[in-house]
Amino acid sequence: MSEEIVLALDAMGGDQGPEMVVKGANIARVRYPDLRFILFGDETAIRPVLDRFKKLNSVSTVRHTEEAVQSDEKLRVVLRQRRNSSMSLAVDSVGKGEAHGVVSAGNTGALMAFSKLVLKTLPGIDRPAMGSIFPTKRGESVMLDLGANIDCNSNHLVQFAIMGEVFARNVLGVTEPTVGLLNIGSEEGKGNNTIRTAAATLRQSDLPIKFHGFIEGDDIAAGTVDVVVTDGFAGNIALKTAEGAARLYGGYIRSAFKRSVMSRAGYLLARPALKMLRERLDPRTYNGAMFLGVNGVAVKSHGGTDHKGFANALSVAADMVAQGINPKIIEDLSRMNFEDSAEPKRAAI
Amino acid sequence: MSEEIVLALDAMGGDQGPEMVVKGANIARVRYPDLRFILFGDETAIRPVLDRFKKLNSVSTVRHTEEAVQSDEKLRVVLRQRRNSSMSLAVDSVGKGEAHGVVSAGNTGALMAFSKLVLKTLPGIDRPAMGSIFPTKRGESVMLDLGANIDCNSNHLVQFAIMGEVFARNVLGVTEPTVGLLNIGSEEGKGNNTIRTAAATLRQSDLPIKFHGFIEGDDIAAGTVDVVVTDGFAGNIALKTAEGAARLYGGYIRSAFKRSVMSRAGYLLARPALKMLRERLDPRTYNGAMFLGVNGVAVKSHGGTDHKGFANALSVAADMVAQGINPKIIEDLSRMNFEDSAEPKRAAI
Repeated sequence: MSEEIVLALDAMGGDQGPEMVVKGANIARVRYPDLRFILFGDETAIRPVLDRFKKLNSVSTVRHTEEAVQSDEKLRVVLRQRRNSSMSLAVDSVGKGEAHGVVSAGNTGALMAFSKLVLKTLPGIDRPAMGSIFPTKRGESVMLDLGANIDCNSNHLVQFAIMGEVFARNVLGVTEPTVGLLNIGSEEGKGNNTIRTAAATLRQSDLPIKFHGFIEGDDIAAGTVDVVVTDGFAGNIALKTAEGAARLYGGYIRSAFKRSVMSRAGYLLARPALKMLRERLDPRTYNGAMFLGVNGVAVKSHGGTDHKGFANALSVAADMVAQGINPKIIEDLSRMNFEDSAEPKRAAI
Repeated sequence: MSEEIVLALDAMGGDQGPEMVVKGANIARVRYPDLRFILFGDETAIRPVLDRFKKLNSVSTVRHTEEAVQSDEKLRVVLRQRRNSSMSLAVDSVGKGEAHGVVSAGNTGALMAFSKLVLKTLPGIDRPAMGSIFPTKRGESVMLDLGANIDCNSNHLVQFAIMGEVFARNVLGVTEPTVGLLNIGSEEGKGNNTIRTAAATLRQSDLPIKFHGFIEGDDIAAGTVDVVVTDGFAGNIALKTAEGAARLYGGYIRSAFKRSVMSRAGYLLARPALKMLRERLDPRTYNGAMFLGVNGVAVKSHGGTDHKGFANALSVAADMVAQGINPKIIEDLSRMNFEDSAEPKRAAI
């Protein structure tokens, strides 16, 4: 990465606001010396924090606006009344070519809506999808869709597979990523028509995609495939269920160590190793859901994250820009010949 | 529980066959002195094991058959050619009133198909569902459906809610069980039409069901509700994803303890506490998926379990018989007034 990468930041998104955004940008700047930032939001809140980071200040521009999207605001209100919000203006700057990508920790539905409205979708993509990297037994994989599209037809799933494969190859650096369709059994006849049709298309595809076939829920954490493809309903539930199970397990471990004097002593001895484990499982490490399929780079940070988590969302955006994955998605898609789907369904966000 | 409870056992189901089944029955017999067993399968394989347990032998009958359902056999083959199998005859004995319930560790789809065919569904139930108890931060909850019905309409989901509530009240012993619909957000407008219609019905219901509303994936392990209601696609994926995440977490913990001499010493000190934790998280504890909505008690044990796990599946069946949950489900259902659904869909199994 030797060329400048400009990221537009929604400085007002997320529970911790401008301070978290600016401090996150400062961490990302050290990792990627070629990063430049345009921060959108309330200048009186941004400036005092930015002034504390001299180097960051020198590669950042502030665009003042007093409007901001609220985290619980309805989509129709946002689209009508928040066109001058920090989020909307940040997306606009990508549309105008001032920035290469946008990152926000604000309202997910609003960010997806502005991204679709302003950036549009890539040629050959019917619906953008939300994807995220997650830790597995073998390393890291990517899953999509995570909730942008509840109802999907088979073509949508095939498009998700192609986008996920390009992401895994270029951003995760996997040489020949394997792709699996999430299902309730691994045998060919399992699942509904939509998923079986998608599997048939992926099997016959002339693309150099390594289609593994169907996978089940426990294959996600096992890392059976590099790319997990599913509709937004199952994907969202799988992601959050895994987070919940990990949290429950962590709680059990903590209470096990508190059980006796011996186990407390054991904890003290094992603490450095357990600390490494905690860092490895830190949800901030995997913060940053990318909107794959929009004509530009858009990344959603978790709203509850801190500056370290936000810095990781910025890294995801920087990697996507640096690897130029959108032209590669377009190229792969142009080689697919989609049949008309019999199941047109509405978008969820 | 003072009356005799007769369970019909498919002695040939599961990876470990008759030995596992008989030894499991022996554990269950100690827990429930009123249990009697009819074991279906190859007598030459069952007898030698049964003869080792004198008391169990005195409360058990063996019904010989040489036929058995294979774990990977297609449903249409099973239904045409396996009517004299140990599994099918065990289900028949419930249909004839010889046994109160059937338990098998064999082919899930076959057990569901025989149960529907022979036992039929309860009046007011369109589709039986698979349910299971699982551990949460607060204790234990029940989730259904876990894979018997991939596509569900809103009436199916409402029926699952009623069956799950009756189960939680009578078998888990929760006084006023709360019921949640699994969704991709907790706000009222989230999800597809089916799930929103089901929620509206449950909200307006005159039944004394405590409907919590929508829950998300991470609410499952948190134990936010006592009954998690979802279609068989999302339910199966959620269950297996949680299992996979717990396994990954367990593997991380083990490797953390192996990291250094200090952490190994810490492990030795904390071992008793960690052993208790391992027992608590033992998947065998929660073995036994009940088929709710069939006119009889049918429980599916995990095929890979051992005798301890099988004994727990027998406990689930014994509890369901002892609590007489089917008449209670019928009573609650008769008080619901289902509108005709606009979404008739096919069954998955």
